[in-house]
Amino acid sequence: MYDLYIGNKNYSSWSLRAWLLLKHFSIPFAEHLVSVAGRDYNPLLKPIAGNARVPALHDDGFQVWDSLAIAEYLAEREPRMWPADARARARARSVCAEMHAGFMNLRQAMPMNLKLRLKGKPATPEVQRDIDRIVEIWEEAREYFAIGEGPWLFGDFSIADAMFAPVACRFTVYNVALPPVAAAWQETLLDHPAMREWQAAALLEREAHAHYDCLAEEYGGAR
Amino acid sequence: MYDLYIGNKNYSSWSLRAWLLLKHFSIPFAEHLVSVAGRDYNPLLKPIAGNARVPALHDDGFQVWDSLAIAEYLAEREPRMWPADARARARARSVCAEMHAGFMNLRQAMPMNLKLRLKGKPATPEVQRDIDRIVEIWEEAREYFAIGEGPWLFGDFSIADAMFAPVACRFTVYNVALPPVAAAWQETLLDHPAMREWQAAALLEREAHAHYDCLAEEYGGAR
Repeated sequence: MYDLYIGNKNYSSWSLRAWLLLKHFSIPFAEHLVSVAGRDYNPLLKPIAGNARVPALHDDGFQVWDSLAIAEYLAEREPRMWPADARARARARSVCAEMHAGFMNLRQAMPMNLKLRLKGKPATPEVQRDIDRIVEIWEEAREYFAIGEGPWLFGDFSIADAMFAPVACRFTVYNVALPPVAAAWQETLLDHPAMREWQAAALLEREAHAHYDCLAEEYGGAR
Repeated sequence: MYDLYIGNKNYSSWSLRAWLLLKHFSIPFAEHLVSVAGRDYNPLLKPIAGNARVPALHDDGFQVWDSLAIAEYLAEREPRMWPADARARARARSVCAEMHAGFMNLRQAMPMNLKLRLKGKPATPEVQRDIDRIVEIWEEAREYFAIGEGPWLFGDFSIADAMFAPVACRFTVYNVALPPVAAAWQETLLDHPAMREWQAAALLEREAHAHYDCLAEEYGGAR
């Protein structure tokens, strides 16, 4: 029996990754929303996860934390979560790890905030470099590693799609224009039934955090 | 045939992780040192790795980048790299992911610089929190997941030992006192023949970077 602890759907990009993965592969789990007020670290979360962060997956009470570690844990039981081809799988892991530890400029300048639709601002050179690299990752995956007919980054839906899902959301919120291949994947992702479900739930969330809403508008231009 | 591209041994903590893993498991590879001047991002590295960073592993020319993705790639062929027990393996992955994306305060305050032995300074509350959490990770691994006789975090040497190896070095450089269980693992790690080889090579490196040396002394107190 899986329990997934997640933060606010409007703000918690890391939570979305684990949640989407479970949803896409139709793995039953009980969902537990915890208030993290937009922060991903909270000492009150210590009983839920060793790193005091969301998302945290409990498997019959055994704690697995960190979105990437959760993904690997689930993939041991559901190997379709990674591409079947060894090199495609290696590349998927490289770009997921890159997402996991990187793109700090983009993440700081474009915090996830699904309720907003901002007109956008010209990106700083550092943020633009992150955007360009993400587009490059998506294009290379689609061009060289997307085996078969599937519309996902590596053909069939994989952990990579879940890991980059919040970026697709951010590019919508902050009105970042994308070249065709990247835009096509973004559209596919946002049209995923589970993504629609998450987005709808985010809009209905009562808990708002003025601080994070202001921050988003500051970075992203007025509505 | 594996080629491993790494940065300066004195400064590049991420390079050490991949290198140590290959060395411990006696996997043959050609070592290529590239100058990154202490930075982990360099556009000149783009032909070597998609993320323009070290370490990068080439498998007959196929690029695998990011220390954690490299570890997973190697572990597919050498399963002993992760603990055999499923829960120990899950926990190892959680703490490796935590290291991979976290401890920013510690990493900023204590850049790796193996040539130095500093007297240390009282840690800021944020750095102390990182130190305390790392000690907790090591203690919990040793207490609950170290199966068998091995002296490593999860009993036998695993990817977790490689991922935390640079932290063990930093605690020596910056003179951070550790409680017994953590200190014992640190001593075991630093006494690993491959660690001694890396440390000796770092001391012999001619390329020094005054900026990074000053930064270390600024954070860590004079020698």
